[in-house]
Amino acid sequence: MKARVHVMLKEGVLDPQGEAVRHALGSLGFEGVNGVRQGKVIELDLAEGTSEARIAEMCEKLLANTVIESYRIETL
Amino acid sequence: MKARVHVMLKEGVLDPQGEAVRHALGSLGFEGVNGVRQGKVIELDLAEGTSEARIAEMCEKLLANTVIESYRIETL
Repeated sequence: MKARVHVMLKEGVLDPQGEAVRHALGSLGFEGVNGVRQGKVIELDLAEGTSEARIAEMCEKLLANTVIESYRIETL
Repeated sequence: MKARVHVMLKEGVLDPQGEAVRHALGSLGFEGVNGVRQGKVIELDLAEGTSEARIAEMCEKLLANTVIESYRIETL
């Protein structure tokens, strides 16, 4: 089975990488870009029947830094 | 309006970061993780009415390296 984990910085946490992208888009002539936040997607190829709780455990232990990041699990 | 761009390495392109995550999950005792690929999500806060073609242009010019990465646009 496949699962996809989306990891984003929490609201209110500064995102310098997103800010750099926003600035670069402006320099390239793309107007009206009000904000950019950058996160990670992790696609997992897992053994059949891996529970969502198990995937959440992977997120808590390794994939996300839950102090500053939130995550969302999507099973495909 | 908001849009989300997903950028992933193309099939066949080595993903050392994903490989490192797969290895780390194994070391933490998570079994049955057959593969991991890591990509980026970029959330854009754009002026109303920005066309998908315009977002694709941002991807081609800055957000993705289309030699090795593919992208998918999702408008929210």
